[in-house]
Amino acid sequence: MVEEAVRIGLVGVGRIGRNHAEILARHTPGAVLQAIADPDASAVADVAEALRVPQTCSSLAELLSSGVDGVVIAAASTSHAELIVSAAAAGVPVFCEKPAGMSLAELDRAAGAVDGSGVVCQVGFNRRFAPGFAAARRAVDEGRLGSVQLLRSTTRDPRLHDPSVVPPWTIFTQTLIHDFDTLNWLNPGARAVRVYAQADALIRPDFRGAGLLDTALVTVAFDNGALAVADASFQAAYGYDVRAEVFGSGGLATAGHVRRTDLTLFGADGISVETSRSDTDLLQDSYRAEFSAFVEAVRTGVAQGPTLHDARAAFAVAQACIDSITTSLPVHL
Amino acid sequence: MVEEAVRIGLVGVGRIGRNHAEILARHTPGAVLQAIADPDASAVADVAEALRVPQTCSSLAELLSSGVDGVVIAAASTSHAELIVSAAAAGVPVFCEKPAGMSLAELDRAAGAVDGSGVVCQVGFNRRFAPGFAAARRAVDEGRLGSVQLLRSTTRDPRLHDPSVVPPWTIFTQTLIHDFDTLNWLNPGARAVRVYAQADALIRPDFRGAGLLDTALVTVAFDNGALAVADASFQAAYGYDVRAEVFGSGGLATAGHVRRTDLTLFGADGISVETSRSDTDLLQDSYRAEFSAFVEAVRTGVAQGPTLHDARAAFAVAQACIDSITTSLPVHL
Amino acid sequence: MVEEAVRIGLVGVGRIGRNHAEILARHTPGAVLQAIADPDASAVADVAEALRVPQTCSSLAELLSSGVDGVVIAAASTSHAELIVSAAAAGVPVFCEKPAGMSLAELDRAAGAVDGSGVVCQVGFNRRFAPGFAAARRAVDEGRLGSVQLLRSTTRDPRLHDPSVVPPWTIFTQTLIHDFDTLNWLNPGARAVRVYAQADALIRPDFRGAGLLDTALVTVAFDNGALAVADASFQAAYGYDVRAEVFGSGGLATAGHVRRTDLTLFGADGISVETSRSDTDLLQDSYRAEFSAFVEAVRTGVAQGPTLHDARAAFAVAQACIDSITTSLPVHL
Amino acid sequence: MVEEAVRIGLVGVGRIGRNHAEILARHTPGAVLQAIADPDASAVADVAEALRVPQTCSSLAELLSSGVDGVVIAAASTSHAELIVSAAAAGVPVFCEKPAGMSLAELDRAAGAVDGSGVVCQVGFNRRFAPGFAAARRAVDEGRLGSVQLLRSTTRDPRLHDPSVVPPWTIFTQTLIHDFDTLNWLNPGARAVRVYAQADALIRPDFRGAGLLDTALVTVAFDNGALAVADASFQAAYGYDVRAEVFGSGGLATAGHVRRTDLTLFGADGISVETSRSDTDLLQDSYRAEFSAFVEAVRTGVAQGPTLHDARAAFAVAQACIDSITTSLPVHL
Repeated sequence: MVEEAVRIGLVGVGRIGRNHAEILARHTPGAVLQAIADPDASAVADVAEALRVPQTCSSLAELLSSGVDGVVIAAASTSHAELIVSAAAAGVPVFCEKPAGMSLAELDRAAGAVDGSGVVCQVGFNRRFAPGFAAARRAVDEGRLGSVQLLRSTTRDPRLHDPSVVPPWTIFTQTLIHDFDTLNWLNPGARAVRVYAQADALIRPDFRGAGLLDTALVTVAFDNGALAVADASFQAAYGYDVRAEVFGSGGLATAGHVRRTDLTLFGADGISVETSRSDTDLLQDSYRAEFSAFVEAVRTGVAQGPTLHDARAAFAVAQACIDSITTSLPVHL
Repeated sequence: MVEEAVRIGLVGVGRIGRNHAEILARHTPGAVLQAIADPDASAVADVAEALRVPQTCSSLAELLSSGVDGVVIAAASTSHAELIVSAAAAGVPVFCEKPAGMSLAELDRAAGAVDGSGVVCQVGFNRRFAPGFAAARRAVDEGRLGSVQLLRSTTRDPRLHDPSVVPPWTIFTQTLIHDFDTLNWLNPGARAVRVYAQADALIRPDFRGAGLLDTALVTVAFDNGALAVADASFQAAYGYDVRAEVFGSGGLATAGHVRRTDLTLFGADGISVETSRSDTDLLQDSYRAEFSAFVEAVRTGVAQGPTLHDARAAFAVAQACIDSITTSLPVHL
Repeated sequence: MVEEAVRIGLVGVGRIGRNHAEILARHTPGAVLQAIADPDASAVADVAEALRVPQTCSSLAELLSSGVDGVVIAAASTSHAELIVSAAAAGVPVFCEKPAGMSLAELDRAAGAVDGSGVVCQVGFNRRFAPGFAAARRAVDEGRLGSVQLLRSTTRDPRLHDPSVVPPWTIFTQTLIHDFDTLNWLNPGARAVRVYAQADALIRPDFRGAGLLDTALVTVAFDNGALAVADASFQAAYGYDVRAEVFGSGGLATAGHVRRTDLTLFGADGISVETSRSDTDLLQDSYRAEFSAFVEAVRTGVAQGPTLHDARAAFAVAQACIDSITTSLPVHL
Repeated sequence: MVEEAVRIGLVGVGRIGRNHAEILARHTPGAVLQAIADPDASAVADVAEALRVPQTCSSLAELLSSGVDGVVIAAASTSHAELIVSAAAAGVPVFCEKPAGMSLAELDRAAGAVDGSGVVCQVGFNRRFAPGFAAARRAVDEGRLGSVQLLRSTTRDPRLHDPSVVPPWTIFTQTLIHDFDTLNWLNPGARAVRVYAQADALIRPDFRGAGLLDTALVTVAFDNGALAVADASFQAAYGYDVRAEVFGSGGLATAGHVRRTDLTLFGADGISVETSRSDTDLLQDSYRAEFSAFVEAVRTGVAQGPTLHDARAAFAVAQACIDSITTSLPVHL
């Protein structure tokens, strides 16, 4: 007896929402993108036509009433927690883009709803599904790196388009949140206990007065003694750069790369290699893998990948960064 | 107005056929795997259930009558040409795994049928769709390598399972056929004019008497003066190895890699990296891309990727290898 | 008219002193190793015989009176400043291994003597002479990286032999002092203004009670806004690891590697590469280059490479690390 | 008792002779460059002054009479064999640049003289001393690659300055001679038995009529079944390129690289790495190592590295290439 395709509803069709829509519609085996919802009716119509999505909605409520088996939330970050609560209340499994909440209180509320309803909730920490990162975690689990002593995680976006629309603390709550989860996840069983953050407007110093933080360096100390560093930049001239390192008593693992393909050119100017220029290029395989995992979770009712508890642990570090910047001091968790 | 999904029928569900079935069913946007055909009813049933394929057939004829928009042939190589002719006669676009024919005569007959019917016929030279190889060709087309002078292509399989079932000349007609197409394709507009082949049973010298050729080195000279070398081995201890190089007056391009992921481990024994162990692992993206191209070709009626004429050009080199081995001399085309 | 060879005297023939003796005797064009001094008469005799050094001494004073053109100091760190002062008083150019002094006061005293006498004094920050590091600095100087925003420097030794003999703060004053100079040097014109250090006994936690710090993570903020991180470990399973990165508005430069040769092996376990296992292996070219620079400086009277002022700037960061560890707070310089 | 420095005499101060003079004078521990000889008195004087060489001569005879312990021959290739014979007659150990003779007869005559006199004779096949190549050979010797099945060697020069002065067959007797020795040496115990060569004027087709061969592809079959390929180009846009591969039943070894340093730049155009632009840059370590080996051989009377018998074996392949080009057929040795 073959199982039916899982019907997925997607909330939010902005830049990343459209990317997710295409993956769910075309590259997620066992799933159909049944419905999409967004207050922007025109955007919804565009995406629905391009991807032949049967149903369009203006809200999550409408979408939930249409009978989907799982919901993917790619709406504005400020609405994440509320949307999770609604989906949980409806008993519908939910995948939510990071950060899944804009405060620890929001995340606790969302986690309470999810735990209460018993639905699966997976958070969009996509690096866990990047093949090299996943292999690094396996190396840790297999003991090949021994006890973890030093970690590093880097996220560099290719372009800071408009500094004027960057909400406060974005570099911590939206960008480095990935790295904080990566560091937690590559140091399994350990808990972040001390955070020291430094950040500045180095790309656009003209927005320093407006509070822009476009470059950051954060150290995280864990209760197993491991020391970690994360850095982020909103503008890397060479493209999208996501890498991590784990150093332990048994050795070092490095994951991530910026090559676009395996072509190497040797010319009059030396060796040259093209680089990836966007997250949706560099991390396409990770996105596909995380949605496949979600579909499997919907089917089995067993959570796959990062949970709201992981999201809370990562956000706790982001919150500590905010406190550290505010006080110019290390912050203890 | 959104177009309907293209209905694909697949002939042959052996090892590579099953791989293609899964890609067509799950990873080819815009396509549905509508029907599969194979004389082995049990194999057909298995695949159909696993992938929820609506229709099962025992032959291409039956499959064609079921109303598919395009046919993918992954049956035994000896039947390729005949199946192409049948599909062409039915006016159905066809994708055929290499070598598409077991002799120049077969390929000519297939090409005649295809040209006569006007249907699209794409051949499964998957490297053309590997991102690094495709980028190498773009570098050639853009003139970044100048005039092509030296080329190299390598195919090494991970394991020679059973030498006793390897048909004669397999290393040329089934394995190096990929490399011959790669060399032709990376030297656009040029024609192979002289071939010298050497081959032996070096992996299993105990089968030398039985005529096994498991290792080969072939040189190909082109009418633009470029000199090329291709080598193949049926057993590379380190996995599946597919690489190419183009050297020209403007520089060198290298494509292909054997890394499994971007994880690098540094341990007590030094640096170590896992390698790909199968074609269906290493070339998964290429398979997906070639089927997407075929779906597009079915939709538009415009051929994408390698044609039967390319298959003939590659087979001409393989045939010259056979003649070269037979005579121990270089062969002029 | 050809110039005479520069006569070098070496003080200290411990592990690194012997390495330097061999380089000065055999691999430094234009120099002769004229004399060596060490209180350990037997060690001096051994080295002198092996390298055919004409003269042996028991002290710097004796060595200076023998008429050398320049002095290389590779004695115990605690004696560096005093030896520099003596050499300067004698008007003899001096190369001193890092850290060149064990306190800011010592370094100021040495700098005062050197500046007063007008002799050249070069400090042994060898990375500046590593080809990749030097090329990174050139890239900065040429503006290829734009304005510097993030930096990283790493030093990992291969083996912590005997934790019981490690003096306090060694990881900062002896190991990371290299990285602090590297960070200063790769961010030319900028001054370190804020330091936060974390360190622990993670390799040998049984020596934590004895005050061992074998693993450290340090952040350094500069007055041009750049944020830097340095990490060190006394035991990297994979060998000696010295690397640096500079990220700026124009791009990223990475320098350093751990490969032993350019051999890559592909075997049944995947790809493997041998790693360098000692500083005297990995940095041999850097040592040779820094001594060639010193010989040139002796000849011309013009300082080459890092000075005592650079040593002071690096030590200021090390001292801030000590203060940061002591107070558990960031320290402002 | 410490041994005296070995007194070396150098014959020939053209481009490569000057390079060798500098290495012998400055970078060869245990050696002094005692005398240099060249018919060009002005060139000799220049080099002698720059490197402070005590004695200048106009001929090998004069140089031999000056009492050197060993002779390095870097004169014109056409004089190699004769100079070896003279040095052997004088009982002086000799290092001779490849090819050591311009015909098998010349090499046999030189070998006869050397064997008769009992002096050491080392040939300048420098790749054997390149660290990665040496490590590849060790991997073969240790059985890590199993039985050798496929080999590759590449030599590409950066620039074809003046095609009009290139003697006939240079690409085989001067350039690929390195690769032929490399292939022989990486397949120890095996003997080349069949050679097929193709070559053309692809860089400067305007000199095709004059007989220029600037690009070549050669296959070599060995009596242990291994199949090898060598290619050469007189003009690689990206610099000097020397690489080799050995593929066996146990795996693959690759050696050689074209990076100038370990700096990697990531900028707006992607990843870029500088390349080596000359043999004297890329192979500097190999030159130094081969002269150190020669000094040791002079001291001990025991040959180190490649001999005249190796030179003969390599030249036999070069001669077969000439015959193959002449007949357009494979040639059996």
